[in-house]
Amino acid sequence: MSDFSAIAATKPIRTVAIVGGTHGNEFSGIYLEKRYRAAPELTTRSSFSCRTLLANPMAHQANKRYRDSDLNRQFKTVDLANPALANYEQSRAKVINAELGPKGAAKTDFLIDLHNTTSNMGACLILTQPGAIYNLLAGYIAQKMPEAVISRDEDHFKAEDHALLCTVGTFGVIVEVGPQPQSVLRQDVLEQMHEMTQHILDFIEHYNLGTLPELPARVEAFRYLHSLKLPVSANGERLGMVHKNIQDRDYQPIQPGQPLFTLFSGEELPYEGTEVVYPTFINEAAYYDNNLALSLNEKVWIEVYPEG
Amino acid sequence: MSDFSAIAATKPIRTVAIVGGTHGNEFSGIYLEKRYRAAPELTTRSSFSCRTLLANPMAHQANKRYRDSDLNRQFKTVDLANPALANYEQSRAKVINAELGPKGAAKTDFLIDLHNTTSNMGACLILTQPGAIYNLLAGYIAQKMPEAVISRDEDHFKAEDHALLCTVGTFGVIVEVGPQPQSVLRQDVLEQMHEMTQHILDFIEHYNLGTLPELPARVEAFRYLHSLKLPVSANGERLGMVHKNIQDRDYQPIQPGQPLFTLFSGEELPYEGTEVVYPTFINEAAYYDNNLALSLNEKVWIEVYPEG
Repeated sequence: MSDFSAIAATKPIRTVAIVGGTHGNEFSGIYLEKRYRAAPELTTRSSFSCRTLLANPMAHQANKRYRDSDLNRQFKTVDLANPALANYEQSRAKVINAELGPKGAAKTDFLIDLHNTTSNMGACLILTQPGAIYNLLAGYIAQKMPEAVISRDEDHFKAEDHALLCTVGTFGVIVEVGPQPQSVLRQDVLEQMHEMTQHILDFIEHYNLGTLPELPARVEAFRYLHSLKLPVSANGERLGMVHKNIQDRDYQPIQPGQPLFTLFSGEELPYEGTEVVYPTFINEAAYYDNNLALSLNEKVWIEVYPEG
Repeated sequence: MSDFSAIAATKPIRTVAIVGGTHGNEFSGIYLEKRYRAAPELTTRSSFSCRTLLANPMAHQANKRYRDSDLNRQFKTVDLANPALANYEQSRAKVINAELGPKGAAKTDFLIDLHNTTSNMGACLILTQPGAIYNLLAGYIAQKMPEAVISRDEDHFKAEDHALLCTVGTFGVIVEVGPQPQSVLRQDVLEQMHEMTQHILDFIEHYNLGTLPELPARVEAFRYLHSLKLPVSANGERLGMVHKNIQDRDYQPIQPGQPLFTLFSGEELPYEGTEVVYPTFINEAAYYDNNLALSLNEKVWIEVYPEG
């Protein structure tokens, strides 16, 4: 714990940004950003300043995920520096990087990017980088919101190689809540997103002030392994769908040999791996254009406190 | 019953059409139409011919409900005859009317239009016209698929004044199944749609052959009254959302005074009617562009057999 106090004292978080509408048809973040903009007292804490941003207004106006390309895939450092990448979202990425970054030397110490999924994932905190502050945050969220899920998504990549918007901040996380159909605003989902965001802001305040409560020593998390595509024919036509016994069972174990897909012919295709895995983003609507069926994860433990 | 036998004998159904993809992002009907096209034995019966049609291929290609305007609002007789209505869906409507109609003197005796909703409506048979054959069908579906819901939607309108695709046939119904997010294909929802469609085909066969089983004398149904819009400000901005205690409770009674909407300010707005009503299409994603929150219905009974 003394190690942690040292971290808090030397590197406080002074600037926070909350981003909604990175995807234009994920309504919870869009409405929550709007609410926080109208009522800044909801995001005010004593030890940092907080701003909000609607990331992709044109996509929201068109009621679509994106206009030209997925905004949440445009934030690799090399792409941000490439003037040839000039469509709407690629341009928005450069503007957001100038506004909240620049990546690698950002004016934003901690960035919270708000997302929805059509999958049955509940309230999920997605960590895309390793580090002591994320481990503490995982412990804090697990304590305050035990129903929430902690996810580690390709946190072995350096921030500069990550294409996600949240990596523009020195630190950054994704708040992902579902299930919610695209273009729908559910009160229950909005409340979960608000609750998790408030806990993150409270965490940062405690972190800065050195007033964090005692946290669990370790928390369970899911670590992204790889994605599975729907079965398709040689000419790219889909041959089947996610098996109904997998549907809605995000985070529930999949055993080797268990049916994963049902072909339109009636045949079932099993999971061919040799280890138990845990699915997320099952049948996510936004991934249909590339035929992604689900992501597979392993279960891992996060050690909340630094060793020694 | 003798009355019914007379109906069956004088007016058999000789031509059936199954239409999918009237809305391009409602995937169950799109895949079911494709399956039936590839395996026509699934729709073959002894007493009628059956064809299928993908209604809005360009909208499906764009992964959208529609390209220029809602195809399922283009089938009023006066609009079909108006050459000035010439956008993509208005043109498709004229082509479909020539192909399956023409409305009022149709080559299609019975049309089944397949739809999905993001609302929690289960498998729903929507009747848009009154008549003895629909009453019998309601009884048959209630008997074979007791979990299904029967809905009467503005069946006081003459067919010529109805804008729905299913009214192109001499007889026509909508099979509406949910919840399913737009652009998602759920196995369970696809199976429900297939099951209801098969029951309808079986019903027509029995109707033609005079071999219908004894049916319940009357069945419960919901009759559309009117729709409610989300609360909006003078300049059209949304001020709130569907109350979480209403969400997902399609067909569950709403009592006078019960909270219907939650404003972003936290205030709750009650249902101001004086009668118990039953909601459908609660928070349907497709209705967000016109701020529709839900439809209200009354509970009615359908007398399955002709009187006397």
